[in-house]
Amino acid sequence: MAKPKKTPRPKAEPPKGFRDYFGAEVTERQAMLETIAEVYRRYGFDPLESSGVETVEALGKFLPDVDRPNEGVFAWEEDETWLALRYDLTAPLARVYAQFRNDLPTPYRRYAMGPVWRNEKPGPGRFRQFYQCDADTVGSASMAADAEICAMLAEALEAVGIPRGDYVVRVNNRKVLNGVMEVAGILDPTDPDRFATERGIVLRAIDKLDRLGPEGVRALLGPGRKDESGDYTEGAKLGDEQAGIIMAFTEAKRTDGAATLKALETLVSGSENGQNSVSELSAIAELLGAQGLGEDRIVIDPSVVRGLGYYTGPVYEAELTFEISDEKGRPRQFGSVAGGGRYDDLVKRFTGQEVPATGISIGVDRLLAALRAKGRIGGAAEGPVVVTVMDRDRMAEYQALAAELRGAGIRAEVYLGNPKNFGNQLKYADKRQSPVAIIEGEDEKARGVVQIKDLVLGAKIAESASHEEWKAQPAQFEAPRADVVAEVKRLLGQGR
Amino acid sequence: MAKPKKTPRPKAEPPKGFRDYFGAEVTERQAMLETIAEVYRRYGFDPLESSGVETVEALGKFLPDVDRPNEGVFAWEEDETWLALRYDLTAPLARVYAQFRNDLPTPYRRYAMGPVWRNEKPGPGRFRQFYQCDADTVGSASMAADAEICAMLAEALEAVGIPRGDYVVRVNNRKVLNGVMEVAGILDPTDPDRFATERGIVLRAIDKLDRLGPEGVRALLGPGRKDESGDYTEGAKLGDEQAGIIMAFTEAKRTDGAATLKALETLVSGSENGQNSVSELSAIAELLGAQGLGEDRIVIDPSVVRGLGYYTGPVYEAELTFEISDEKGRPRQFGSVAGGGRYDDLVKRFTGQEVPATGISIGVDRLLAALRAKGRIGGAAEGPVVVTVMDRDRMAEYQALAAELRGAGIRAEVYLGNPKNFGNQLKYADKRQSPVAIIEGEDEKARGVVQIKDLVLGAKIAESASHEEWKAQPAQFEAPRADVVAEVKRLLGQGR
Repeated sequence: MAKPKKTPRPKAEPPKGFRDYFGAEVTERQAMLETIAEVYRRYGFDPLESSGVETVEALGKFLPDVDRPNEGVFAWEEDETWLALRYDLTAPLARVYAQFRNDLPTPYRRYAMGPVWRNEKPGPGRFRQFYQCDADTVGSASMAADAEICAMLAEALEAVGIPRGDYVVRVNNRKVLNGVMEVAGILDPTDPDRFATERGIVLRAIDKLDRLGPEGVRALLGPGRKDESGDYTEGAKLGDEQAGIIMAFTEAKRTDGAATLKALETLVSGSENGQNSVSELSAIAELLGAQGLGEDRIVIDPSVVRGLGYYTGPVYEAELTFEISDEKGRPRQFGSVAGGGRYDDLVKRFTGQEVPATGISIGVDRLLAALRAKGRIGGAAEGPVVVTVMDRDRMAEYQALAAELRGAGIRAEVYLGNPKNFGNQLKYADKRQSPVAIIEGEDEKARGVVQIKDLVLGAKIAESASHEEWKAQPAQFEAPRADVVAEVKRLLGQGR
Repeated sequence: MAKPKKTPRPKAEPPKGFRDYFGAEVTERQAMLETIAEVYRRYGFDPLESSGVETVEALGKFLPDVDRPNEGVFAWEEDETWLALRYDLTAPLARVYAQFRNDLPTPYRRYAMGPVWRNEKPGPGRFRQFYQCDADTVGSASMAADAEICAMLAEALEAVGIPRGDYVVRVNNRKVLNGVMEVAGILDPTDPDRFATERGIVLRAIDKLDRLGPEGVRALLGPGRKDESGDYTEGAKLGDEQAGIIMAFTEAKRTDGAATLKALETLVSGSENGQNSVSELSAIAELLGAQGLGEDRIVIDPSVVRGLGYYTGPVYEAELTFEISDEKGRPRQFGSVAGGGRYDDLVKRFTGQEVPATGISIGVDRLLAALRAKGRIGGAAEGPVVVTVMDRDRMAEYQALAAELRGAGIRAEVYLGNPKNFGNQLKYADKRQSPVAIIEGEDEKARGVVQIKDLVLGAKIAESASHEEWKAQPAQFEAPRADVVAEVKRLLGQGR
């Protein structure tokens, strides 16, 4: 006789590239989000929470570094409409602003925090759901909006525990490079499509400055470059003078902002667009200075070229300047934890009107990783006091004891597993990182006392004590039942 | 010549059944989630945050009231795996527990809060993304776990602002009804499939008690029932004695818990399973009593029949007992805001082992609606102080002034729209619900003063004052520039 067909058991795992967060991972992130929200709020930004699902139509194809719609997003069809999970918090903002523009204040300062989803190949430490924490100002073309966001970013970083000196906010303007390319003769304002190939090569070359060094970039601006493996990359074939202008741009950063701005000004003196863009940078620098944000915190840096395709004006990036050890113990720079800039075209897709907008996105998970790497968060055990169960029939009394502790604001619980094996109860308390266990057996009950076990001291003794010390059990003492709350409070007050 | 084809503009709206949350809607929900989390935490529950996306396989077909996989969920295929948005927080918990059971403490108390998604037909006030706020204990079969969760639920409700007397937590046991049906002869423990049709009719009939009244239910237990329209519903065709047993169950609630338990005991005296289930209820009642939770807060109520298909033991439900006005101004009960119970089968799907579990889910959005309806949250204006721009060239000074206010912990911002029309700046401040506006024109600058506009008082005057009063402008006064922070603090201290 054939056996009835069994349904195979489902695999107990999340989809590839997704993960779970436990305990302190959750509370630490939540605390960071609240701290940042409090800074955003103080700057006058209002919260907005849009849903995780949008129409593909509304999201558009603005996913950074992706040209085709749907690429990089999780999407599905429903009644002939394609829906998708949001890939960032900016595209939904554009939709919301276009939808509610008559009701919202203008300018509209909003912040948003929550998960976003990317349908990308997962990798080590690279997940397909992660948190973003954004602030944007929609409807203001003023450079004061950009300056304000840079100042707020610096304050947010300090608020979450990155001290001054451990971070720097770099500011640039996407248009400055355009101006430089105009001067170098590879951008014609009257015919924007001309020299597109050359400009593409130039942009990619500058982006590789870190890796190839000035010589490598210089080679790519000229005839081309052969790498160590012998592979040849075609260059932009610029003349010496043209290439010199571009190289001067990549080297325009000076020791102070005024000098950097001066250098940029000289470079773009042949382009009106370029001059305007340097003026915008100057305006931001002046506003920040007036608010007391010196160059120890925010610097003008022409080498910031992030997402140049996406942004239309000032761009900014926050970098942590301290070193951490990588998985092989080698020191490395921690790098970027936030970025943003001005994007004046997003709302236009919906309304036909150009609406200026500028904003920042903080990579909360990277920031948490940085603080953990520096030992600035985590470590504190926050397990509950565990009331052990010595007598199954007195469960109600144990519960009442735990309720008493909670009434005094102490995190406390009764052991709810099988109480038969007392060792398991203590193992459980250990796994829970409990600071204290309470024991009330028949004998203690009769005498009106409880045993209080100091698990923190107990762990220390277990590590180092002699057998005699261990037998003496200094980590456990007896107290009157009526004093339980006071005694536990005393122990917890000792930094447990 | 053919015009170049234009891409049609995307619609600026979310998908059907989704919505956006603005300002206080976001902060009030966040505050409620934190308050509830703090209660959960104090009871020893640890946070868990799983991702929004799971495999359909892992989610299973446990969506309440839905039998087929994928029904009611948002799902899409990727590399031959079906992925879906989570429809609740319990199914992911089962997957996480099965996956990490060797590392997690047992019992595992966890809480989780976040959005869930339902692919249902949207309706008024019915959205396809909403928040849940759950706490569950996995791995304990003890009734103490259920009692603890009921106590915690009551405490959470009080913590968010529902005072004692305005809510009640009702507790029942899914198995009591089984026992009653055994006694009535429509459940045969040795042949569970027998009488399935009759039991189905009985369950649906009891579920309609509110609507049909006892006579209607009685008719459905017997031959059947004809409604006002003349439609006939087939009945369970129980004999008088059988129907009497079921009716007695629906009427078993007495004025105190002990009497209710006694009535239930008598009813199921012929069924061992029934007797055990009443013992479970007694145990819960005893534990709650020992923790001081009287029947003003938690009651045994046999009429709680929620999700009977889903739960395997005790079930509980929190109901708000106050009346609110519906959209037509008629008073109505607010009803259920949380529910839960014991479900011992969920983890078994993954591991083959039965793992006992019990938990609660609080409907945060409904709870917020209740508090708003009672006027217990909302209303407080929390707009920022607006520094107006009288002189575009002094933007840096205005920014510095706003930074000064923020430095004193005051929410403040500079107007960043076009400053040309001063009326627009004040209209903006109005829309932002700003309590105070600061004005510093050329004249004020020269004299070292600012104008401070008390917008709260101003709004009051505008409502009621005579023309003379209005002209006198008592809501605006001059102050030395150096005193701005102190003066604004003073105004805000007046409850603005």
